[in-house]
Amino acid sequence: MALGTDYSSQDCSVARALELLGERWTMLIVRDAFYGVRRYSDFLAHLRAPRAVLSARLARLVQAGVLAKVRYQDNPVRDEYRLTDKGIELWPVLHSLSRWGERHHPGAQGPRRVFVHSPCQAPLDPNGGCAHCGVVPTVDAIEVHPGPGAEADPADDAVTRALRRPHRLLEPL
Amino acid sequence: MALGTDYSSQDCSVARALELLGERWTMLIVRDAFYGVRRYSDFLAHLRAPRAVLSARLARLVQAGVLAKVRYQDNPVRDEYRLTDKGIELWPVLHSLSRWGERHHPGAQGPRRVFVHSPCQAPLDPNGGCAHCGVVPTVDAIEVHPGPGAEADPADDAVTRALRRPHRLLEPL
Repeated sequence: MALGTDYSSQDCSVARALELLGERWTMLIVRDAFYGVRRYSDFLAHLRAPRAVLSARLARLVQAGVLAKVRYQDNPVRDEYRLTDKGIELWPVLHSLSRWGERHHPGAQGPRRVFVHSPCQAPLDPNGGCAHCGVVPTVDAIEVHPGPGAEADPADDAVTRALRRPHRLLEPL
Repeated sequence: MALGTDYSSQDCSVARALELLGERWTMLIVRDAFYGVRRYSDFLAHLRAPRAVLSARLARLVQAGVLAKVRYQDNPVRDEYRLTDKGIELWPVLHSLSRWGERHHPGAQGPRRVFVHSPCQAPLDPNGGCAHCGVVPTVDAIEVHPGPGAEADPADDAVTRALRRPHRLLEPL
């Protein structure tokens, strides 16, 4: 079915956000960026999305100012993708999507991932606050932990392997 | 481009949520349901989505347990769509998408819509709490108000007209 990708009939901030974020794979790229993925090859290995789609989505996220493309090597030329401040402000969207998914479509043994306030080692509450100390942590003070519902994922890419242990958000893998 | 609609390679709650919510128009249908839209003809007039797409999305949301289809008239048969508890739990997703959209893609004069805690008449903070009293209100205690960035929308459907005034979430239009 040929559908457009904008919602020009909708004068609405949700529609504006979805014109970018509603494209297939885009929120999973953003998710991986929060997990610390920065390199094209790591996005590709973890997402297993078609190359052309991944390239197009990364370019669109750079154009929209959600990711910044940063050169980290000159010879051969290599760039990586980092969340900008605008991108980091997507954390509540990602967290609320994850909470809802864990609650209503969990793994067999419960949540697949648990987000934890790093200094307290306490889980986040549904509104993104620390269940122990009550502050709403900044993203770089949050860790993603494997939960009881994390399956023995047969994938063996670097991102899947790294996420089998607690990992601080935004910290490069 | 022919893309599937699942993310079978991703053992992830975000992916599970997006398999439903990531389909085009779905989150705008959910948004309208929070605004109090219940009838097919009102969704159609406000969203201006193709009929076949709207029907398919509504059926999928009913199948997923986000909307319940409820008969309100027998002759002729008429059904309406109401958010279930599972659907109402999507509020943090919708609110965070709206916040991000208002902040980064606002109307010319600022936010198009403002969410307000009804008893306090104070706006919600970015985490969904009341900026005045501090509680995180239940959805039925939240009002949507037109903000300074609301354009003089030329659309004249019943939903657009109703949202020119403050309106309590979930209250039928």
